[in-house]
Amino acid sequence: MASSAVTVRVFSLNCWGIRYLSKQCAERYAMIGDFLSSGEHDIVLLQEVWSEKDFLGLKKKLAFSHPHSHYFKSGVIGSGLAIFCKHRIHDTFLYRYSLNGYPYMAHHGDWFGGKAVGMAIIQIGSLTANVYVTHLHAEYCRDKDSYLPHRVVQAWELQQFIRHTSAGADAVIVGGDLNMHPQDLGTRLLMSYTGLKDAYLETSQFDGCEDGITLIADNPFINKKELIPFEKGIRIDYILFKGSPKSEIRCDFMSTTKGSIPEKPFPFSDHEALMADLRLTPLASQETRHDKSSQDSGKVAELVDTLTEARTEVKVGLHCAERMRYTATRTGIMGLALLILELAIAAVPWLALGTEQSFPRTSFYLLAALCCAILITTFLLYVFYTMELKSLQGAEDQMRLAVGSLQERLRGVSVDHTPLRKPPEGEEPSTFDTEE
Amino acid sequence: MASSAVTVRVFSLNCWGIRYLSKQCAERYAMIGDFLSSGEHDIVLLQEVWSEKDFLGLKKKLAFSHPHSHYFKSGVIGSGLAIFCKHRIHDTFLYRYSLNGYPYMAHHGDWFGGKAVGMAIIQIGSLTANVYVTHLHAEYCRDKDSYLPHRVVQAWELQQFIRHTSAGADAVIVGGDLNMHPQDLGTRLLMSYTGLKDAYLETSQFDGCEDGITLIADNPFINKKELIPFEKGIRIDYILFKGSPKSEIRCDFMSTTKGSIPEKPFPFSDHEALMADLRLTPLASQETRHDKSSQDSGKVAELVDTLTEARTEVKVGLHCAERMRYTATRTGIMGLALLILELAIAAVPWLALGTEQSFPRTSFYLLAALCCAILITTFLLYVFYTMELKSLQGAEDQMRLAVGSLQERLRGVSVDHTPLRKPPEGEEPSTFDTEE
Repeated sequence: MASSAVTVRVFSLNCWGIRYLSKQCAERYAMIGDFLSSGEHDIVLLQEVWSEKDFLGLKKKLAFSHPHSHYFKSGVIGSGLAIFCKHRIHDTFLYRYSLNGYPYMAHHGDWFGGKAVGMAIIQIGSLTANVYVTHLHAEYCRDKDSYLPHRVVQAWELQQFIRHTSAGADAVIVGGDLNMHPQDLGTRLLMSYTGLKDAYLETSQFDGCEDGITLIADNPFINKKELIPFEKGIRIDYILFKGSPKSEIRCDFMSTTKGSIPEKPFPFSDHEALMADLRLTPLASQETRHDKSSQDSGKVAELVDTLTEARTEVKVGLHCAERMRYTATRTGIMGLALLILELAIAAVPWLALGTEQSFPRTSFYLLAALCCAILITTFLLYVFYTMELKSLQGAEDQMRLAVGSLQERLRGVSVDHTPLRKPPEGEEPSTFDTEE
Repeated sequence: MASSAVTVRVFSLNCWGIRYLSKQCAERYAMIGDFLSSGEHDIVLLQEVWSEKDFLGLKKKLAFSHPHSHYFKSGVIGSGLAIFCKHRIHDTFLYRYSLNGYPYMAHHGDWFGGKAVGMAIIQIGSLTANVYVTHLHAEYCRDKDSYLPHRVVQAWELQQFIRHTSAGADAVIVGGDLNMHPQDLGTRLLMSYTGLKDAYLETSQFDGCEDGITLIADNPFINKKELIPFEKGIRIDYILFKGSPKSEIRCDFMSTTKGSIPEKPFPFSDHEALMADLRLTPLASQETRHDKSSQDSGKVAELVDTLTEARTEVKVGLHCAERMRYTATRTGIMGLALLILELAIAAVPWLALGTEQSFPRTSFYLLAALCCAILITTFLLYVFYTMELKSLQGAEDQMRLAVGSLQERLRGVSVDHTPLRKPPEGEEPSTFDTEE
């Protein structure tokens, strides 16, 4: 049965909403709320809404324009992810990334934020849409990015989550701050594995910053030095989408804010807001169509290359985490040795020369306290690095398995021209596939 | 196209594999490996394989009978979850439960295990099967179970994970140690929300312990006192399954070990092993069939009741976590006050009466060290309880939203008799569903 198309307007913004730290935080939330309350956008995906109070403030303001909302809670201060929607949210699910920086890097704060990907299932006309909002670990130094393995694992888990949870969806819409450039390893991994399309690249018409950049030098909240060597800015925020055998999605128009808002003293945030008009067309034929993107052997080969690159990056992270755990262990052993030595020095005169204390008391207690502090700290670090190692190893294992499976499919494609995901329909199903 | 049925034999066992702590650990692994290497079982789901070395030992032994395997890594010592399979594993995904006990309850050890649910996608004949293996937080005291809210949240996340990731699967198979009795809240939540069927209840033929119990008093590794008031034992391990519009699954035969293994001095583990013969019949008609279990308004109403019960339990957990965070805060403030007081006492004579130190040095340093230890510990506890609170609140929010959505469906069912998941096909898709 043919149905008419529906246009869904999606809005995505990293709100930079750190209370008391982000500049003009309250004023900017008021501006964002006023802008959204006009009800122009059907789906609003926000990141860095760090305070639940700010979410509740927005919720109150958008009660009429966007009656349905969800705030995803995670970590110590929350995931910062929020969704406002004109359509009823039928179901939600949150996936917390297994790696997300280090708790002792408190000034970077990512660990405390509990970065995650949130999913909301909504019904748009006759179509079920899975809407995802996410925020990946920040990049503080591109040249020497110690968080790169963590971000690659996050991109890996993001694509896994989207791929595995969207099988029943007619349409997939993803918005968020990926903290990755379009050609970065993580972005390529995400796009090629999921088959998601980038609204900026796909849109028929675009009105916004040059090259679609979302962190621009002209934004007054931006420290220009941090953007070097990208003078104009970088594109790290995205709206992505994917259709299904039951629907086709096209991006008719996309726009971004341009560093300032007309008649306002400052912009919404240090990031630019993204807006996309997605046209969803329900397809009459509902028979299972094999997704061409995953069948094309060229694309599969490219995906294998990307995965291999990702495995290398994860291995670098593994090596680094192992080294850090080793350093923690060695420091811990040294602290223990020092403590034993100190106790021995303190005990020997007592044993051999009577009760006279030859070790200065003050130094004794200070040194003992220092040793205990070293032992506790190194123990906690050991536990933390072990967990990091497990997560990195887990991701590497899964990637290796995925490469094996893709290569198997590739062989199938190049030799048999059989579909990638399913064996031929006529195959005898009672014979087991016991190939190695 | 009609295809013949396939029988899949599933094996599930909690291996109790704590090296150096579990009795006869190495011997039991050797027994398990010997038993499985006969190749009788197509899918082997193991829990509590805490050491990767033991997994690798099994992998070597089962290289011919089960060429495909995956070990899920998580937490400090690993999730303990492993899968061995005759079929190629095409893809894997791991979901770590957001709540899993407390790190300071080291003697219970659950927190260090990083409890999770692992998924593997395999191809059985023409059917794609999603296989899940999981292990939930242990129950140490049924009467006063302080981990109940954590386990309920785990059951909630388990059902979310299975429901959202299995939309594209033709068959769903779940095995594991749920640490919940069949009538427990978490089990009801899992079963009613996912529509999974319990192999023990569905099987045509059963050979095993009375009432299907899997933790039995006759097992020599079991401390009988722990089973009180369940004299004979309890059923906490399960094999669950679900078909799809493309396949029908039936359990033809199910068996469990009975506390001892013929010709062996002791059983495989402190848990009994579960074995089920599942018959998968591909269905010729592949048109979307609405799942009756989710359409029946009686069942939806029951699910709403179960969810309400779960929300209450999570609220109890919230209350408890808030109280514990409050206690940590109060203790921290007392530690800080003590430190300030001490510093004031030490400083005042120095300021007022010259450099003469009136505070005994030893006591001074000991007290200062104690205060610092209190401050650090309470700070870490505060962070931990805040994360626990966020996870509990997150689960509660999602449950509330789910109840709202189910009640909406219920109203739809009782008034319109429309399908639950999808609006009627003829509905105009361009009109937005903006109901509140």
